[in-house]
Amino acid sequence: MDADTVRIDIETLKAFCASVFRRLGLSEEDARISADVLVAADVRGIPSHGVGRLQRYVIGLSSGIVIPDAAVETVVDTPSSIVVDAHGAMGAPVSYRTMRAVIDRAAQGGAAFGCVRDSNHFGIAGYYAMMALEADMIGIAMTNTAALGVPTFGRKAMFGTNPLAFAAPAGAERAFVLDMATTVIPRGKVEVYDRLGKALPDGWAVDGSGRPAHDPGTALREMSAGRGGILPLGGLGEEFGGHKGYGLAVMIDILCGVLCGAPFGQDVKDAENTSGRVSHFFGAIAIERFREPTAFRADMDRLLRDLRETPPAVGEERVYFAGLKEFEHEERCTREGVPVLRKTYGQFVEIAQRFGLEAPASR
Amino acid sequence: MDADTVRIDIETLKAFCASVFRRLGLSEEDARISADVLVAADVRGIPSHGVGRLQRYVIGLSSGIVIPDAAVETVVDTPSSIVVDAHGAMGAPVSYRTMRAVIDRAAQGGAAFGCVRDSNHFGIAGYYAMMALEADMIGIAMTNTAALGVPTFGRKAMFGTNPLAFAAPAGAERAFVLDMATTVIPRGKVEVYDRLGKALPDGWAVDGSGRPAHDPGTALREMSAGRGGILPLGGLGEEFGGHKGYGLAVMIDILCGVLCGAPFGQDVKDAENTSGRVSHFFGAIAIERFREPTAFRADMDRLLRDLRETPPAVGEERVYFAGLKEFEHEERCTREGVPVLRKTYGQFVEIAQRFGLEAPASR
Repeated sequence: MDADTVRIDIETLKAFCASVFRRLGLSEEDARISADVLVAADVRGIPSHGVGRLQRYVIGLSSGIVIPDAAVETVVDTPSSIVVDAHGAMGAPVSYRTMRAVIDRAAQGGAAFGCVRDSNHFGIAGYYAMMALEADMIGIAMTNTAALGVPTFGRKAMFGTNPLAFAAPAGAERAFVLDMATTVIPRGKVEVYDRLGKALPDGWAVDGSGRPAHDPGTALREMSAGRGGILPLGGLGEEFGGHKGYGLAVMIDILCGVLCGAPFGQDVKDAENTSGRVSHFFGAIAIERFREPTAFRADMDRLLRDLRETPPAVGEERVYFAGLKEFEHEERCTREGVPVLRKTYGQFVEIAQRFGLEAPASR
Repeated sequence: MDADTVRIDIETLKAFCASVFRRLGLSEEDARISADVLVAADVRGIPSHGVGRLQRYVIGLSSGIVIPDAAVETVVDTPSSIVVDAHGAMGAPVSYRTMRAVIDRAAQGGAAFGCVRDSNHFGIAGYYAMMALEADMIGIAMTNTAALGVPTFGRKAMFGTNPLAFAAPAGAERAFVLDMATTVIPRGKVEVYDRLGKALPDGWAVDGSGRPAHDPGTALREMSAGRGGILPLGGLGEEFGGHKGYGLAVMIDILCGVLCGAPFGQDVKDAENTSGRVSHFFGAIAIERFREPTAFRADMDRLLRDLRETPPAVGEERVYFAGLKEFEHEERCTREGVPVLRKTYGQFVEIAQRFGLEAPASR
């Protein structure tokens, strides 16, 4: 066991987070969904989007940056599409319900898409894409985020880390779940390098002149001042395909921001007293409209088995497919509990005290 | 004017290619579509997919690797989906008609998708995605290709360059047209480096042990022997997001290969006397199901203008958005004709002679 972490049972952790969200004014159901999405990030090994953020939600919901009882409004509703205005609501519940509505529509019509605008951080995109799996569908989820990424050949942040999630069901194998930011790294990676005093490699970030940024501290200060930023997947220039990652990030901004009439590009930004007003895009495609789902799942098994049985490179132990590491992390969390940083656990104790709750028991 | 190229008027070049395709047994309409798609690649500045391949089509169609009069069959047909078995047909005409069917279905239902299996090389993916633009739709096109890409941490090719195209209409600005392979580079780039005697940079390709390949000649020989291959977008390992490009390539294989019950992964390969039996995936989403298309186009204009007006990095002249370079290349070709390598033109002369045609007049 890592000395820096404690382990908490999945259900215990969810119940605690849900209680906190209830105290912050979320409905019973919204609190449950929000806790489920938050804890799912830790369970899948993506702690940057997990309970380490609970403190931020406490601040956001108590200060009104995130509106606990926003009057979420469906502004467009057709058999294949839905546009929801979240009016500043908590991101997870409105996203969950929109994806659910998209799946219901796809069950009828074969394919459907939904947008949510004026929303807040929705957690891990993969959560929503995976909701389609049980329904024998391919699931898609995306969100735009505050501008941080710099276009190829540019020197100013014009788009977010804009993640894309895509999930497809298998049979005996775990589902294929791709959940990736379209920037080469998240901002948090620069912060980690800053704490470690390590230089950033070429291809991660640029300074205010558009040249590679090497000192992480300087890079963070410049980014906060609106200069330079993170590079798209593919890195600097076109040599390694940076223009492709840049294109993917803008594609996501078009589907999330432009398609539902919401802010996009530089207009998506976190400010002191407002949320990012981000928007999301969800999709579901029913497999049965193309072929028998059991045949699809059988072929998926062969594809995914072939991939994880790829002979590894010298010095490497295993080849994965997207989502496999996360499922294995989930299995470990089910057996051993969810790893929570002691620092985060300290925040739990404070939050519990503030709301008259008990901090979740650690193992 | 480049001494290595001649320039031929767009329509002259299309007419010549169409005549050749007619002689090879394609119907009038199939010949016209095939020529249009082929020349579009040169016009958009993607000569690797253009008329330089005409010779290969001549060989393919005369030898029966590509079947000029294949009995293309629609095997699934619903209001939101279509699956077409090309039975070894020429890729472009069957792809064109499938995308047209997808657009028609999306006009009725809001969103539709189509797969084509047992097909051949379909040219540039962007061509089909762009067909959606006039209909006020977002267009999507993908194809799997012969295995060439190596999974993260692996040492064997398990997926193709699997390109993805995404097109969204604008108003005063050019449309946003992303058309990208999901490997970091195409195989052709290694061939270019081999001719120039240049070493490959880290992050492009790996040898049969899974380590970075530096000598392009050795890399090409190894790839032909089924060892090593090209890396996914993001390069070697996970440091620069290679697992993301790997995930995107597999996503495309799922949508193209698995979803329509066709070969995928290593089973997609070009052999001496068969085509790759590749499959394609097409999609269209009607913008009006989300918001007024004129409002969408106006916001697209703002997004794209902001992107191309991003302050450039020191030493760079301009920032582009996906598709802008290609549209500018098209404008130049309209004014000055399409650049065709003298070597390719020499092939035209031979082909023309063989079929009793006149080689296209150069400017």
